[in-house]
Amino acid sequence: MAKNLITREEDYSKWYNDLVVKSGLAENSSVRGCMVIKPYGYAIWEKMQAQLDKMFKETGHQNAYFPLFVPKSLFEAEEKNAEGFAKECAIVTHYRLETDPDNPKKLRVDPKAKLEEELIIRPTSEAIIWNTYKNWIQSYRDLPILINQWANVVRWEMRPRLFLRTTEFLWQEGHTAHQTEDEAMQEALMINSIYAEFAEKHMSMPVIQGIKSENERFAGAEETFCIEALMQDGKALQAGTSHFLGQNFAKAFDVKFTNKEGKLNYVWATSWGVSSRLMGALIMTHSDDKGLVLPPKLAPIQVVIVPIYNGEQELDSISKIAEDIQSKLIKLGVSVKYDNRDTLRPGAKFAQHELQGVPIRIAIGPKDLENNSAEISRRDLLTKEIIDMGDLVEHIDKLLSDIQENLFKKALKFREDHITQVESFDEFEEVLNKKGGFISAHWDGTNETENKIKEKTQATIRCIPNNSSSSKGKCVYSGKPSNQRVIFAKAY
Amino acid sequence: MAKNLITREEDYSKWYNDLVVKSGLAENSSVRGCMVIKPYGYAIWEKMQAQLDKMFKETGHQNAYFPLFVPKSLFEAEEKNAEGFAKECAIVTHYRLETDPDNPKKLRVDPKAKLEEELIIRPTSEAIIWNTYKNWIQSYRDLPILINQWANVVRWEMRPRLFLRTTEFLWQEGHTAHQTEDEAMQEALMINSIYAEFAEKHMSMPVIQGIKSENERFAGAEETFCIEALMQDGKALQAGTSHFLGQNFAKAFDVKFTNKEGKLNYVWATSWGVSSRLMGALIMTHSDDKGLVLPPKLAPIQVVIVPIYNGEQELDSISKIAEDIQSKLIKLGVSVKYDNRDTLRPGAKFAQHELQGVPIRIAIGPKDLENNSAEISRRDLLTKEIIDMGDLVEHIDKLLSDIQENLFKKALKFREDHITQVESFDEFEEVLNKKGGFISAHWDGTNETENKIKEKTQATIRCIPNNSSSSKGKCVYSGKPSNQRVIFAKAY
Repeated sequence: MAKNLITREEDYSKWYNDLVVKSGLAENSSVRGCMVIKPYGYAIWEKMQAQLDKMFKETGHQNAYFPLFVPKSLFEAEEKNAEGFAKECAIVTHYRLETDPDNPKKLRVDPKAKLEEELIIRPTSEAIIWNTYKNWIQSYRDLPILINQWANVVRWEMRPRLFLRTTEFLWQEGHTAHQTEDEAMQEALMINSIYAEFAEKHMSMPVIQGIKSENERFAGAEETFCIEALMQDGKALQAGTSHFLGQNFAKAFDVKFTNKEGKLNYVWATSWGVSSRLMGALIMTHSDDKGLVLPPKLAPIQVVIVPIYNGEQELDSISKIAEDIQSKLIKLGVSVKYDNRDTLRPGAKFAQHELQGVPIRIAIGPKDLENNSAEISRRDLLTKEIIDMGDLVEHIDKLLSDIQENLFKKALKFREDHITQVESFDEFEEVLNKKGGFISAHWDGTNETENKIKEKTQATIRCIPNNSSSSKGKCVYSGKPSNQRVIFAKAY
Repeated sequence: MAKNLITREEDYSKWYNDLVVKSGLAENSSVRGCMVIKPYGYAIWEKMQAQLDKMFKETGHQNAYFPLFVPKSLFEAEEKNAEGFAKECAIVTHYRLETDPDNPKKLRVDPKAKLEEELIIRPTSEAIIWNTYKNWIQSYRDLPILINQWANVVRWEMRPRLFLRTTEFLWQEGHTAHQTEDEAMQEALMINSIYAEFAEKHMSMPVIQGIKSENERFAGAEETFCIEALMQDGKALQAGTSHFLGQNFAKAFDVKFTNKEGKLNYVWATSWGVSSRLMGALIMTHSDDKGLVLPPKLAPIQVVIVPIYNGEQELDSISKIAEDIQSKLIKLGVSVKYDNRDTLRPGAKFAQHELQGVPIRIAIGPKDLENNSAEISRRDLLTKEIIDMGDLVEHIDKLLSDIQENLFKKALKFREDHITQVESFDEFEEVLNKKGGFISAHWDGTNETENKIKEKTQATIRCIPNNSSSSKGKCVYSGKPSNQRVIFAKAY
């Protein structure tokens, strides 16, 4: 396995791409903008899915599945939503191929098999789902509907990047229907908290929870809540959003219910999603110039054991010990690989496990046999220590928690070091260009100012953070009065 | 919930469709041929997925994800495969919508956003996957590749039926690459056994394992192995197939490897899949005129507890007991719902749980409080018994196994009663029309005869069964010599 990566300092963007490919997470496919998620990458995604799915079910949500296709007439029903996605839609126009009369070994689109109405491949499923909910909802007894879907979606992408921005991507999308505005709002906020908890506890990735400005809101939403993370190159990454949709989709699809008092009302809605983009966030939050660094809770292999031996007999003795450790750790729920391949030298194995971000490596050699010990290396700090066999299992168990926590602390420190409060637009530009990261600044609350700042600096408002206390000040750009600081950054 | 179904005898096809809709498994969507899988149906599918995924992983397979789209030039590379699917392909030709100049509230396909090469929505993924494997395989060290994918696929369907035949469906598709013919063949056979074990042990659905005739083989395969089940209306249902692909795809995509002796060889391949069609098989194997009957291993809710009470105080006493039973059963891994809704009477609840096929119902009323007992009903036999509270948990646990086994035995008896050995074509037609089911008959081994029989009777060869001993005879149609009986039936 080719090991040497370019460093982050030399070329961050190339470092990221090479890392994704060389560590076996994903690669570009022959379909422009679409990726192949390879087994190692997919195993991480499966762990993310399992945890999120558990959290959704624990809060009363059920999974279901809706069609890949949205007929154009449904797609355009909610105008803002349609407008927001129209320019990036893959469109099915025909349903049959035929033999090419000019070239009998080739196929061509059968012109007779043209669809009467084009089908849009879902870029998001509000339209098809609300058209379905219409038939499910008559009375308040039918509410709430709390449904999630794991699916692929397609948004035509002009500048694709593995995991971060791909034409097809995998995600979950929740779509809920409620009797009251307040209940829908509470749902959107609760999901925002679930996303934050998942990011921080499982991905070890600190996030700022907040509200999007009107410019950055989901097309068709009344309010978008988000979690925003900071990558090592100082750019922000939107990691998950939940939308309070008001009655927009209910009105577009005429979904009303009879309330307890017998009155007809439009239904209130939310939608929310995280995607395989989280893989990109995970990689860029923790990894280093030697390769991936994975938080133990999401690592497909948490511990690898490498034997260092001369000859069969030594291997046999080591294997006995290694398999004993393995079985003890597995009982504790730890995933352990015993890497006894005879096709690679230990050094090459070490390099591969480093590249792939296995949190803990246990090496056992002849000296360890003598001393009844093993050498433990942790991937996050690249440190080694010799541990007595008797203490090993307990040590590893504790170490996994330590690594999980240390990664969070390290990323949090980086994030805290990269939130800069600025008071003038000169300062804004200087910080953005020299230091990067999140900029906390006063803003006058207008789209106009936000657009101007974006034009001049490429920075956008990532969110109006939840925890910011109101503080009077002057907009960093217009000088007009402002009641609160917001978070700006360049973003993925 | 509307309860009354039409009976199977009155209209089997309508019974099936009504059952799927009324029990809340799935419904047709506004996209022709595409269904919405509702939460209750999806929960069964999730149980199927979890078990199959476990079996695949235990046998060394890993999950990955490949693109939804197949460029036309790749799609047509393996000619037989392309020919087999060409007539049922959804085709993406454009990647953008624009505002309709004639109607600013509508959208239309942007004629400037036409793709240079059309994209086929995968009807199956051999082409895109083998084009990817090409870059992964150089040497025998890169083999075997044992990958599975959970995905949606699209095959344009003229006569759609919920679960059984839908334009979009959910499935898993395994795609493996091997050094030798024998290894690939063993893989295809092993998967055939996994499918059979899943069908019989988890779905309680007996299957015949066998080989497809050339006519019924997967387009692009050298050999197709299958499991064939029998539905209650006497029609067969192909429940899973695994294909030995020979070197067809390796040749079409030029995938060679250097073997241990340093020689270049084409790679050997398999592919295999089961789909959401299994939901249809499950429903039609066990259900009755009162609704679904589900084997406990796949039932989203295995046990429901219904309180029968007058007034709050009685409900409180029952709830205490019910919650105690529930927590004890949950500890044993049983999924239990305590149905204490105050919006429905017990009778209505009973009807709903019957319709939805909950395997065991526990009813607790005032008499049971007095006698320290509960009434247990099993869905498969529709029988009731009074059980002492002290024995209840153990009884339920055993009963779940009994039901699982009883459903299999019942379905097996039906299947055995509906395999008829015939010696003449008159007999063939008579059995097919009057009794239905599987017909075991001698066949001369030619496509021509198979096609003639299909034309005259609509019956096809479901498989050449694995366990049939060779027996000399005469083809039931042509009178030519035959070495083995094969299984004919009309099929879904």
